[in-house]
Amino acid sequence: MALIVQKYGGTSVADVDKIMGVARKAAHLHGEGNQVVLVVSAMGKSTDHLLDLMYEITNNPPERELDMLMSTGEQVSISLLSTALHTLGIESVSLTGSLAGIKTDSNHIRARILEIEPGRIEEELEKGKVVVVAGFQGIDSRGEITTLGRGGSDTTAVALAAALKADLCEIFTDVKGIYTLDPNMVSTARKLPFISYDEMLEMANLGARVMHPRAVELGKQYKLKIHVRSSFDEEEGTIIREVASLEEKYIVSGIACDVNLAKVAIVGIPDRPGIAANIFNTIADAGISVDLIVQSIRKDEENDILFSVNKEDLNKTLAILEKISDEVGAKEVFYDEDVAKISIIGAGMANVPGVAATMFKALADRDINIEIISTSEIKVSCLIKKDRINDAAEGVHEAFKLGEDQASLT
Amino acid sequence: MALIVQKYGGTSVADVDKIMGVARKAAHLHGEGNQVVLVVSAMGKSTDHLLDLMYEITNNPPERELDMLMSTGEQVSISLLSTALHTLGIESVSLTGSLAGIKTDSNHIRARILEIEPGRIEEELEKGKVVVVAGFQGIDSRGEITTLGRGGSDTTAVALAAALKADLCEIFTDVKGIYTLDPNMVSTARKLPFISYDEMLEMANLGARVMHPRAVELGKQYKLKIHVRSSFDEEEGTIIREVASLEEKYIVSGIACDVNLAKVAIVGIPDRPGIAANIFNTIADAGISVDLIVQSIRKDEENDILFSVNKEDLNKTLAILEKISDEVGAKEVFYDEDVAKISIIGAGMANVPGVAATMFKALADRDINIEIISTSEIKVSCLIKKDRINDAAEGVHEAFKLGEDQASLT
Repeated sequence: MALIVQKYGGTSVADVDKIMGVARKAAHLHGEGNQVVLVVSAMGKSTDHLLDLMYEITNNPPERELDMLMSTGEQVSISLLSTALHTLGIESVSLTGSLAGIKTDSNHIRARILEIEPGRIEEELEKGKVVVVAGFQGIDSRGEITTLGRGGSDTTAVALAAALKADLCEIFTDVKGIYTLDPNMVSTARKLPFISYDEMLEMANLGARVMHPRAVELGKQYKLKIHVRSSFDEEEGTIIREVASLEEKYIVSGIACDVNLAKVAIVGIPDRPGIAANIFNTIADAGISVDLIVQSIRKDEENDILFSVNKEDLNKTLAILEKISDEVGAKEVFYDEDVAKISIIGAGMANVPGVAATMFKALADRDINIEIISTSEIKVSCLIKKDRINDAAEGVHEAFKLGEDQASLT
Repeated sequence: MALIVQKYGGTSVADVDKIMGVARKAAHLHGEGNQVVLVVSAMGKSTDHLLDLMYEITNNPPERELDMLMSTGEQVSISLLSTALHTLGIESVSLTGSLAGIKTDSNHIRARILEIEPGRIEEELEKGKVVVVAGFQGIDSRGEITTLGRGGSDTTAVALAAALKADLCEIFTDVKGIYTLDPNMVSTARKLPFISYDEMLEMANLGARVMHPRAVELGKQYKLKIHVRSSFDEEEGTIIREVASLEEKYIVSGIACDVNLAKVAIVGIPDRPGIAANIFNTIADAGISVDLIVQSIRKDEENDILFSVNKEDLNKTLAILEKISDEVGAKEVFYDEDVAKISIIGAGMANVPGVAATMFKALADRDINIEIISTSEIKVSCLIKKDRINDAAEGVHEAFKLGEDQASLT
């Protein structure tokens, strides 16, 4: 007997038929003698419909009232799913974030889980019930309803699995698992049987939108085995876990591409200490994440700083740079939205020489110019022209033989 | 400065425009220096849409899960209404039944309010906020979400007004107030400026569906002034309150008609003690309300018992009567769905002779046969043929001069 937490996203509970499908899956698992906790999102587009109503009133609603509104979406799902289980003869109980003991801070629409008091869930599991928990929501110390923001339901599932010391956390989604590369980009993309937390984190941060980084982070912290798989078939997906041994590490596990970014540059900065710190502190204070930083010192003792930001942060970033440019007497601020990032990720690359070089050669072979390079222990990222991203992905995928089973295992 | 509780039903918050209208009304009241608590129902048909989803799964959902589902309807309304107030520059906060401290028993879908802990509401009122409370819902001692069943939002409003020691409770609805008779039946029907709790209770119980009896009962218990009025204009409605003096009592305040009932009879019962008690206990145990009971003893020492029940209880009632009839050896059970009840209600009639006689004469003048009569301190009811009900209502309304202002005041 195992304790299993399963998470089903909005597309997996989009209508009553799909809800019945989830119930049957859970009933089967329960029938095999497992304790089952289901975490569900709001049905399909239901949150959008609620937000449409809100935006008829104002584009700038109080965040507390947004949480009051949005949290109803999951409450509908859990009630229907629990009822669906009843019709299959399975004892079941639905719990809101509040009833499930999910305590968060008070930052509405982007709350973080502080702790979970799993007493009620454990009590219901003891009674043999399947417990259906509303994802994405919790309550703060005053009992106010909060929501967790992006990746909220994944985070609920992983946090619950950790608090309940679950044997397994399964994330059911609309893709079949984690691939060496987005299968829409090359047909030879291969589903990975497993991936390490760190690799998954890099993948998630680099634009593979299967699972939110905060949920992966939490899984890593509690060494929780997470199985990412499709709601719509029985096929095994990808297991996220600690690497069992050095031998299991891939040199390169996969490739992530991100086209939702822009390059910005501030050039001709007088070479005085503290200017770079000033720039990046101001940008961080504005809540903007920066990636791929390059600083170059020219002979004439002027600095250029280049970096990339998410496209939605571009205007805010430019405003900050213009202001700093005036203050310090830099020559110019410019930007380029016509860029994309390609990254290779692999926990094994740290011990293998020449990995980055292989990537650069694959790009050079296709006449793709690299504008910025950034590396970490387990990844290499290159900024290139956006219109070459498919070409680049195909070339790099091929260079590391990622389409061939286990090809790049150390 | 007064503390005012206002309740808006589903039709009053059916869309965003109507919600803005409610917000403007409340903002005006708040601007005049009053403390304002708004109790709202789910938007228009939104509860029906939720139930449709549920009934796609099963016709017999667990009542706990029904409450989990249905309570989301009001949560959407309060969030939107509170946001609407914000857009008008009014500080406001929405509270679920749970946050508003509405404690109920654990009878799902028909819970009763046990007590209200108004601390949070009072705190928010102190801060100058308009407080928007979800009607129809509460929580039990375990924190489980409950709903109050029929008349739930009215009951929430009156109970809150009592707990907060409000100066006034206003029930906004889709009618303009309490009339001497349903204005759809006669054009001379007149809106009453006031009515006593007891009269309103009789009206409500007798089929005038403006306000639920349980809410009126609660108002009576706490001597709370309740103003029933239309959401869609500024006109004064009807105030429900204690009668201030004997002089203010109407002989007859109004007329209520009920066509949703059936007459049943069990005839030829051997005259043994305890048989009537047996019949009515069994019927009460089945949760069926009985009205207008007549028992007659014939010369040959056999009893006939006639009474009326709500149409939806007819089949259950007949099944019980058939069984008892067999047991005690009665001659026959029959029923008639072709009946209606007309009642006159007035707190002053107890002290005025001849009121019932005036009613009977009004019916006789129009050749309307009375099948059963039942009276209380403040009402007289007659069961007649259903196809004569409009005729009867018109005749009785005229006989008591109810169309004329203050005509029947003692």
